[in-house]
Amino acid sequence: MAYLSDIEIASKVEMKPIKDIAVSLGLSEEDYSLYGKYKAKLDSRELDKMKDQENGKLILVTAITPTPAGEGKTTTSVGLADGLSKIGKKAMLALREPSLGPVFGVKGGAAGGGYAQVVPMEDINLHFTGDFHAIGAANNLLAAMLDNHIHHGNTLQIDSRRITWKRVVDMNDRQLRHIVDGLQGRINGVPREDGYDITVASEIMAVLCLADSIVDLKNKLKRIIVGYNFSGDPVTAGDLKAEGAMTALLKDAIHPNLVQTLEHTPALIHGGPFANIAHGCNSVLATKMAMKYADYTITEAGFGADLGAEKFFDIKCRLADIQPDAVVLVATIRALKMHGGVSKKELGPENVSAVLAGLPNLEKHLSNIKEVYGMPVVVAINKFPTDTEAELDAVKKACEEKGVEVVLSDVWGSGGEGGIDLAHKVVELAERDNKFNFVYDLEDSIEEKLIKIVQKIYGGKGIELTPAARREMNDLERLGFGEYPICMAKTQYSFSDDATLIGAPKDFTVTIRNLKVSAGAGFIVALTGAVMTMPGLPKVPAAEKIDVNEDGIISGLF
Amino acid sequence: MAYLSDIEIASKVEMKPIKDIAVSLGLSEEDYSLYGKYKAKLDSRELDKMKDQENGKLILVTAITPTPAGEGKTTTSVGLADGLSKIGKKAMLALREPSLGPVFGVKGGAAGGGYAQVVPMEDINLHFTGDFHAIGAANNLLAAMLDNHIHHGNTLQIDSRRITWKRVVDMNDRQLRHIVDGLQGRINGVPREDGYDITVASEIMAVLCLADSIVDLKNKLKRIIVGYNFSGDPVTAGDLKAEGAMTALLKDAIHPNLVQTLEHTPALIHGGPFANIAHGCNSVLATKMAMKYADYTITEAGFGADLGAEKFFDIKCRLADIQPDAVVLVATIRALKMHGGVSKKELGPENVSAVLAGLPNLEKHLSNIKEVYGMPVVVAINKFPTDTEAELDAVKKACEEKGVEVVLSDVWGSGGEGGIDLAHKVVELAERDNKFNFVYDLEDSIEEKLIKIVQKIYGGKGIELTPAARREMNDLERLGFGEYPICMAKTQYSFSDDATLIGAPKDFTVTIRNLKVSAGAGFIVALTGAVMTMPGLPKVPAAEKIDVNEDGIISGLF
Repeated sequence: MAYLSDIEIASKVEMKPIKDIAVSLGLSEEDYSLYGKYKAKLDSRELDKMKDQENGKLILVTAITPTPAGEGKTTTSVGLADGLSKIGKKAMLALREPSLGPVFGVKGGAAGGGYAQVVPMEDINLHFTGDFHAIGAANNLLAAMLDNHIHHGNTLQIDSRRITWKRVVDMNDRQLRHIVDGLQGRINGVPREDGYDITVASEIMAVLCLADSIVDLKNKLKRIIVGYNFSGDPVTAGDLKAEGAMTALLKDAIHPNLVQTLEHTPALIHGGPFANIAHGCNSVLATKMAMKYADYTITEAGFGADLGAEKFFDIKCRLADIQPDAVVLVATIRALKMHGGVSKKELGPENVSAVLAGLPNLEKHLSNIKEVYGMPVVVAINKFPTDTEAELDAVKKACEEKGVEVVLSDVWGSGGEGGIDLAHKVVELAERDNKFNFVYDLEDSIEEKLIKIVQKIYGGKGIELTPAARREMNDLERLGFGEYPICMAKTQYSFSDDATLIGAPKDFTVTIRNLKVSAGAGFIVALTGAVMTMPGLPKVPAAEKIDVNEDGIISGLF
Repeated sequence: MAYLSDIEIASKVEMKPIKDIAVSLGLSEEDYSLYGKYKAKLDSRELDKMKDQENGKLILVTAITPTPAGEGKTTTSVGLADGLSKIGKKAMLALREPSLGPVFGVKGGAAGGGYAQVVPMEDINLHFTGDFHAIGAANNLLAAMLDNHIHHGNTLQIDSRRITWKRVVDMNDRQLRHIVDGLQGRINGVPREDGYDITVASEIMAVLCLADSIVDLKNKLKRIIVGYNFSGDPVTAGDLKAEGAMTALLKDAIHPNLVQTLEHTPALIHGGPFANIAHGCNSVLATKMAMKYADYTITEAGFGADLGAEKFFDIKCRLADIQPDAVVLVATIRALKMHGGVSKKELGPENVSAVLAGLPNLEKHLSNIKEVYGMPVVVAINKFPTDTEAELDAVKKACEEKGVEVVLSDVWGSGGEGGIDLAHKVVELAERDNKFNFVYDLEDSIEEKLIKIVQKIYGGKGIELTPAARREMNDLERLGFGEYPICMAKTQYSFSDDATLIGAPKDFTVTIRNLKVSAGAGFIVALTGAVMTMPGLPKVPAAEKIDVNEDGIISGLF
């Protein structure tokens, strides 16, 4: 059986004019700006006017430890929102914007899939409303001002060997990972080692996603550390007087983008920080606005629940002072098989015993959400065309025997119709009492926070700090960053820091190699290994297949 | 007397919703896409539907050899269009988009000035509708695909020492002029010398501005030469299979942007290529569309008439098959004084004899336009607050004695009201017969074309080709580029290639140092000296003064 590609499905659906979607939210023309006929920016200042209105329910969609292909959190989120719409609930999505660079690599688009997509998918996957370009420009203005300062005499005494601020581009371009710039003489800058990250890895992305107003954005930008001076003290964007111009570049990017699903459910898609060196969630403003407009806001967080949900709770919810009402844990037969010990190439054929052997991974994530965070949770099995009835039945039965609430979700194949069961279950869960807890307190020491995450969430014994990490920890506490939350940069393929430890490993120790502060965003990044912040293109990039016809219609985008 | 800044003046005027401006052009909602309330993109495919409609008159605004501050071509263009509107004519502007980078340097904005501006000026000067970011992304995708090809085995045998394609960023960032990238081992690319240009210097900018449809755009992109292989043959974007994805990135950028003047005259602002290594004119599509919608289309070309008008005629008009009806030659008292031998610091105080001594520069430009191109022309004296009555009278009288048609334009201080005299004169000129000629024929050899430009337009004796340029000339003819038009990259401060030769120098020889092809755009660039394609920031960048308040209102932008 041949399946239609995402862009083929998307192109067959007639979108509603986005102004009609805005009207359905009770918005008048003054409240939004159109970007073409199917995209709009909502004015985030409206949030302040709505502050006394009650919030709707907030539902987090997270996942078990994923395979490299991902388990369909965005697809499940979209289908759940459409399912809620189908059963008569006022639902809205708050999702991340996809990055442009990977579209030309292997990955293709990132706006849901099958019959559970947000549209216009080609715009969302390309420039959308320009937010990421604005973030790139603000990032690169700061870099230009930094090097310009050094070039013109370096009165701040910046140590060019200790510059932490990189330039960015929204492209998979490995050639730029490590460069030497400022070459060819005194009129052309000052030579130094430098490098590029992809735009989504910029701290400005995290800053934008955690800001609750343009003034807050400017204050956060001002605090960004770009490097250290010869005395070892931090040099900030504020020291370079860059925060005003950077904010000017972000004056539109701060406003959430309104689009729709294939079934016309409203979706705010805004911001998309990395889920390793940053917190991996869409903007606080988008989430908070959706909670005012809708009775059910569906949002997601990057990677598996050990990373995504943990950061969603301990960073985003804490800093934004919001609280979810229920959690959906997405699992796939493929991922369960992988945790049951099947190699990545053998995930296709039926293998019931492997699926059952993979359940401990699911159970550990579940117990974290229930016991540690105190949240009601349902498992959503995201159905793939290759899943067999025997596999699906086995998982369902095993879950039910253990008292785990589980629902089959077929939103990729059937859209909102395939998400109705999940929608009913979510409505029920969101009415239950919850006793929401954080994993650690901000007053805990950095070391205590790290230990709590590893012991409570990952199921490990504890941590080991490298000498460099210990020195950095002491420095960060001395500089006054000790009460920042922690942002773990760890492999997404295991609860541990070893990608090969599948399932629910125990008795492991997590090695913290480095500790860095994102002083603007307001968290400490704990690095457990090398993190790739600039991807490369494969031998045959997806870009080679992308084309446009005389009417501007794009083909070859997945 | 204190003057209001451009942004202060702009902020005091109430803009009309851009959809009202669109209605005034006879457009329906299907014909445009809104980008916020005050910007829209017109669908360039409409041009094909209007091909049997008559064209309105096309007026080129150019200038005498300028001072570094510029003589106000954009301001005069805007004021002339508003003046035409005031006397009841259907007028429209076709102008270049300003570059983002310089906004943070010294220069400030570039959307007219005083009471002759296009608005919203802060948007136009920042991201506008994202065209330049799209051009940057397409440029950098091609670069990433190029280096990725080499990284994965280099089957095209690209000689990394002969790569001509640079990456770009829309930022004044001297640190990036000369870099070495691909460092730190085999997973991180292949080390080579590289460098960045500012986005407006990308050949893609010139390509976009010369394309007449999305299919033509793709064909031009495909022809772009990115470097040479070890056999010395060109390697193109088409060889890298990049043109489809690049066009996908430009699918919206190809459509002209509609905004308005402070007096609500419609303006298409679209594209902005460099005026040295490229042709310095807004897009062909914007000019052609404006000519369908309006009875008078006012357009401009970069630098003085020796560069801007020459390229407008010999490149843009020739390739687009359009023809202007009249020319406005902008002169200022300041520039005339400079050509009269006054140093740049002494341009303020009254100096009638210097003004008169500077007239030969104006006369040479005038005679070029009249005698070489066969066009009716009027001199517009763009009034500055520092000009004295005696100076203005002296110029007017001297012109009238010589039979030169001259009008005083006070659009900076008075908007369209100050452009009424100029408007009446332009209407009169555009009715006159003209005998439009090119300076050279495409069939002329490269050397003949160069000689004709230097002798007929610059007033020089002839050219000298360096050995490198002669070798490059032979190569270009061998590769089949001999019939491309010439794009001169020469100082804008003199008719000659020596910036210190003010006035109307004679008996000079122009040295052609290098000849390069922009195979996508379709012209040969003749370099007479080093051209700066990546500016730097000054010691105190304008960025330090730019700020935004809680309502997103920007201050500190000039």
